[in-house]
Amino acid sequence: MGKEITSREQDYSQWYNDIVLKSGLADYSAVRGCMVIKPYGYALWENMRDELDKMFKATGHVNAYFPLFVPKSLFEAEEKNAEGFAKECAVVTHYRLKSDPEKPGKLMVDPEAKLEEELVVRPTSEAIIWNTYKTWIQSYRDLPLLINQWANVVRWEMRTRLFLRTAEFLWQEGHTAHATKDEAIDEAKQMLDVYATFAEDFMAVPVIKGYKTPNERFAGAEDTYCIEALMQDGKALQAGTSHFLGQNFAKAFDVKFSDKQNKLDYVWATSWGVSTRLIGALVMAHSDDDGLILPPRLAPLQVVIVPIYKGEEQKALIDGRVKGIVQSLKAAGIRVKYDDSDNNRPGWKFAEYEMKGVPVRIAIGARDLENNVAEIARRDTKEKQSYNLDGLDTKIIELLDTIQQAIYNKAKNYREAHITRAESWAEFNELLDKKGGFVAAHWDGTGETEEKIKELSKATIRCIPINNQQEEGACILTGNPSTQRVLFARAY
Amino acid sequence: MGKEITSREQDYSQWYNDIVLKSGLADYSAVRGCMVIKPYGYALWENMRDELDKMFKATGHVNAYFPLFVPKSLFEAEEKNAEGFAKECAVVTHYRLKSDPEKPGKLMVDPEAKLEEELVVRPTSEAIIWNTYKTWIQSYRDLPLLINQWANVVRWEMRTRLFLRTAEFLWQEGHTAHATKDEAIDEAKQMLDVYATFAEDFMAVPVIKGYKTPNERFAGAEDTYCIEALMQDGKALQAGTSHFLGQNFAKAFDVKFSDKQNKLDYVWATSWGVSTRLIGALVMAHSDDDGLILPPRLAPLQVVIVPIYKGEEQKALIDGRVKGIVQSLKAAGIRVKYDDSDNNRPGWKFAEYEMKGVPVRIAIGARDLENNVAEIARRDTKEKQSYNLDGLDTKIIELLDTIQQAIYNKAKNYREAHITRAESWAEFNELLDKKGGFVAAHWDGTGETEEKIKELSKATIRCIPINNQQEEGACILTGNPSTQRVLFARAY
Repeated sequence: MGKEITSREQDYSQWYNDIVLKSGLADYSAVRGCMVIKPYGYALWENMRDELDKMFKATGHVNAYFPLFVPKSLFEAEEKNAEGFAKECAVVTHYRLKSDPEKPGKLMVDPEAKLEEELVVRPTSEAIIWNTYKTWIQSYRDLPLLINQWANVVRWEMRTRLFLRTAEFLWQEGHTAHATKDEAIDEAKQMLDVYATFAEDFMAVPVIKGYKTPNERFAGAEDTYCIEALMQDGKALQAGTSHFLGQNFAKAFDVKFSDKQNKLDYVWATSWGVSTRLIGALVMAHSDDDGLILPPRLAPLQVVIVPIYKGEEQKALIDGRVKGIVQSLKAAGIRVKYDDSDNNRPGWKFAEYEMKGVPVRIAIGARDLENNVAEIARRDTKEKQSYNLDGLDTKIIELLDTIQQAIYNKAKNYREAHITRAESWAEFNELLDKKGGFVAAHWDGTGETEEKIKELSKATIRCIPINNQQEEGACILTGNPSTQRVLFARAY
Repeated sequence: MGKEITSREQDYSQWYNDIVLKSGLADYSAVRGCMVIKPYGYALWENMRDELDKMFKATGHVNAYFPLFVPKSLFEAEEKNAEGFAKECAVVTHYRLKSDPEKPGKLMVDPEAKLEEELVVRPTSEAIIWNTYKTWIQSYRDLPLLINQWANVVRWEMRTRLFLRTAEFLWQEGHTAHATKDEAIDEAKQMLDVYATFAEDFMAVPVIKGYKTPNERFAGAEDTYCIEALMQDGKALQAGTSHFLGQNFAKAFDVKFSDKQNKLDYVWATSWGVSTRLIGALVMAHSDDDGLILPPRLAPLQVVIVPIYKGEEQKALIDGRVKGIVQSLKAAGIRVKYDDSDNNRPGWKFAEYEMKGVPVRIAIGARDLENNVAEIARRDTKEKQSYNLDGLDTKIIELLDTIQQAIYNKAKNYREAHITRAESWAEFNELLDKKGGFVAAHWDGTGETEEKIKELSKATIRCIPINNQQEEGACILTGNPSTQRVLFARAY
């Protein structure tokens, strides 16, 4: 086949890279840490974006677009946020190139075109957006302001991985403004629910909803809610965050509103985002050693039909019958492709579409036609079954639902089997080393202990689950009293 | 109303800014030359993007995403392209900020985080894309490659105008690769046709299809096709361009393919783009002194319904009847809003939706209900008419089509009345000064004359129309022989 994939057992990390590259999701680029999202990967992202966008609009949000650049003086206004991102900022310092007098045909930065104030390429847009909100918000009548932006952002990461951690990535960032604290907290929680619904119902990735410890919060947030997923190697992955920002940005940018009693107060804020990182989560949650496995609801291609024939006569017969099947599947909103190209043999096509994670493959040969059947193969289980051609469309639609549910269940079962309680420091480390997954353990609630555990075990507190059960115990490291278990894991 | 607009007669340029700002399309930002696209403007852009995207996909293109940054050494590889854009490039030179030791709480660029090679923020993506295509294209089987990208780009413009000319703008850029010259030229022409169809059928803006003179070509192109529109002040606006790039980028990036005979040759290329500038064209082509006029096919809101009532009882009656109308309009795919907010009086709402260019306004009062009628107002002509409530949805749908056609016809008639022949240099200048529009005049075909005419009259050759009529004559400036008239205009 010429497209060998390293097995998960052999090298999980290489397996992941192989899948992303060989299935055509993405490619490396000439720019350090930046990737090219290839057409197949971008089609997947478009499906994700469109579903999320519908959910944002259904919850009352509208889209807008704010500048790519943030002047340094605005960027540094909210100090914690600035401090948190300063180390990762790409900075524009000049606005012109000129011919290099010493190297004919080459260009150089024109030293005379130095900006008076440097521009930060946005790593996140709170600063530029709250500086704008200042002019949009005067009264309670201007609130709530429920705005989302689809954009590219840049964070200069030292170690990058395709989709999971790239210097530039695509994302959406919601930025809302509210008259009361409670309303802002409700908004942050609502968007966490939206993310969880999207992850589970569309990506088929089960997630745990929780909130971050102060150490792990977004820089500038009062509270960070998150959804945490589990990958097949037992490592956790933060799949989305929603922040209650308090009045921090309103104070930094002096955004006040007059309430119904004409009293001035600072505005309350949230922000929330998910990114192309979700594609990495999707790949790692479901795929196998033969390639991608994609959830039908997001797969760019849901069904592929491959004809098996000798000679033009057989081909014409199959074409005739497939035409109707394609039409009825398309009419039902199914993304289907009839691959009758004669460049490649059926076996090559089978492997190629397995690599690309197309959920359902239909193979139809001349003898199948005589028997009025087709061979249907599921990508997730590799099961093959003969289906009658009459009413095939209905059965395929059912099968896509079945697959969506099956890959969710499989991931859920794996996740459930990988939340383990640890009662001692030794057990804690053994679980992390040998079993992986989430370890539910007592923690004394201090940042110092959290930091120490991270140093010693490379595990972080992924979250404190929403509505976490309260239970008295002793901290796994210090033995100090604890009121609840939190979820630790090694993570992406 | 508190939202006075400068009239076109008084100050056309201020009229344009007033409309953009007061209708809520966009706002200024804290970043020099960059704007904020507000939710109403972004909703308009989403509609434009979605329609264009459908047309691109229908012609076989797929979307992908390439990095924001172009390393300087790649940027300069195609020399003409590099030379053309060098003066407008924002350049990233550093990747980190740090605390400023002399100013507590402030940040400074970390001098130790200087990039070895500067990164240009893409002003256009030929360089980064063709450097990638090099690894994707080996054989004729890999061709054609038909890829489009929706992205932000940055061109450091000295004088900026909302939408028309901004340092950062949103656009799409198609980049295709072909095995033959003819196929590439056909592609460039096909995309010009797509743009023209979009401009005329959706934006209701008539355009002239043509090609640019060598002086006006895209830097690095062998031929630039364009669509040119005419604004209400008689100035032309380039609304989209499609370039035949020859083998220039293939040669600069060494992109070769082996043909069926296994012979190596450089790949042929096109690129084509339209941007948020189209929103500026839309505003200037149709709007009047009361605000925006939007074509129904792109308007974020096509129909607004305003109730006119005294007391809750009347309100309840109207609500009951409107509910069904809204439902049936929505079911027909119409974007409709029932504005029953009690913050503002009907007169205020009327002015507000006129400002925002909502094509159809329905006003329903208690007496209307008794008579089973509603008052329908067209935004474009300001005509009001009483409609029977039975079958209202069908009539509204027809009316939206009528309006779409009417504003196109109006713009077309204006354009037709503003293509004028000039037979002498005096007449040429008088036409430009007093009448505006396109001036069809003979030109001797040299770049020198073109440059001289531009200097003297501030008019440029907008295009040589496709299938231009051949006609012998004398150049308007030099009197030298000419074989055809070309279209001159002052332009945005």
